[in-house]
Amino acid sequence: MSEIKDKSIELFLDELASKQATPGGGSAAAVMGAQAAALVSMVCNLTIGKPKYAAVEPELRDLLVEAETLRQTLIGMIKADVDVFDKLMACYGLPKNSDQEKAYRSEQIQSVLKEATLVPLACAKACAKAVELSRIAAEKGNLGVISDAGVAVMAAYAGLKSAALNVQINAASLKDRVFAEAQLAELGGLLESAERAAADIYQTVRDKL
Amino acid sequence: MSEIKDKSIELFLDELASKQATPGGGSAAAVMGAQAAALVSMVCNLTIGKPKYAAVEPELRDLLVEAETLRQTLIGMIKADVDVFDKLMACYGLPKNSDQEKAYRSEQIQSVLKEATLVPLACAKACAKAVELSRIAAEKGNLGVISDAGVAVMAAYAGLKSAALNVQINAASLKDRVFAEAQLAELGGLLESAERAAADIYQTVRDKL
Repeated sequence: MSEIKDKSIELFLDELASKQATPGGGSAAAVMGAQAAALVSMVCNLTIGKPKYAAVEPELRDLLVEAETLRQTLIGMIKADVDVFDKLMACYGLPKNSDQEKAYRSEQIQSVLKEATLVPLACAKACAKAVELSRIAAEKGNLGVISDAGVAVMAAYAGLKSAALNVQINAASLKDRVFAEAQLAELGGLLESAERAAADIYQTVRDKL
Repeated sequence: MSEIKDKSIELFLDELASKQATPGGGSAAAVMGAQAAALVSMVCNLTIGKPKYAAVEPELRDLLVEAETLRQTLIGMIKADVDVFDKLMACYGLPKNSDQEKAYRSEQIQSVLKEATLVPLACAKACAKAVELSRIAAEKGNLGVISDAGVAVMAAYAGLKSAALNVQINAASLKDRVFAEAQLAELGGLLESAERAAADIYQTVRDKL
């Protein structure tokens, strides 16, 4: 089966809409984050080489490298979400006829639930990073494409808020509350700073239109 | 050249990131809106037919029809954004050697700028509609996939805020201020109600996790 990233947009949307459990919101979050990173790159690519923006060119060259690396990370997360979901479903399907089987099944579920908490948390972190990269694009990028930096920040923030829901669902089922609370605390910090940042960056773009 | 919707996600992202002016933020906004509509459909498809949700089934069947129609509309908008941008660029490329040529060029630009204001406004309206559809999914959908309704509302809202930037840029260049202000007023109304609605719907989902 081909990877989601290799499927057409239309087919991805068909599969998202279908009654199959995957791809779902976790993959959609990663696609939004990857769109954000791609739009930061677009702003860089349309700024670099323009004499008017020569002063910011070194900074935008660095930004482009960061945005492209982040885009690859986020593209990988489209699949990672499906993989960990499938793994979790496989655990729920384990036999539970004896106490021993029940104990093993529960242990496996708890172990994969930790992964299923960390995978969307990594996506949330990558989206929060995309929010920060869009700030540089909004502040330093070519004014002719500054709206694309505004689209980038909205896509990144939506990806973060979306990934957050998957962290929260899976963390809620974890028995290891110390682990769960640590991940939720990290997520809370990301959400809090990104909310302010996203509003601020969007306004920076609005003021330049 | 094949349409964007028929390209792989990875190729779309490559083209988004490239120094080509299209696809840009306008197409990304339509993709976000289409993801939102697809996720509303997913919630419907995973609720319809479940005995536990029999009471809401008729309403979710109607919602599914609306979400699928909206998804097709938004998929069409991925291309519409590129088409109107290309048309605008063609106008800017018209000759301006004589006063007559200058007048014709300016008239053509102003005419296509109206279209270039209406195209993202239509996308903004479709995304605002996706916000409203996600409310029903969040309130009535299968609890097992309720987070997907939360992702839908974030994607829809990000699509709306993104399309809004393109309305604002193009409206700013319009000489017909009566037309421009009418579109901006309509957009303002959409943004105001969607901001409250999106926060509210996201919280509905959060409370159910």
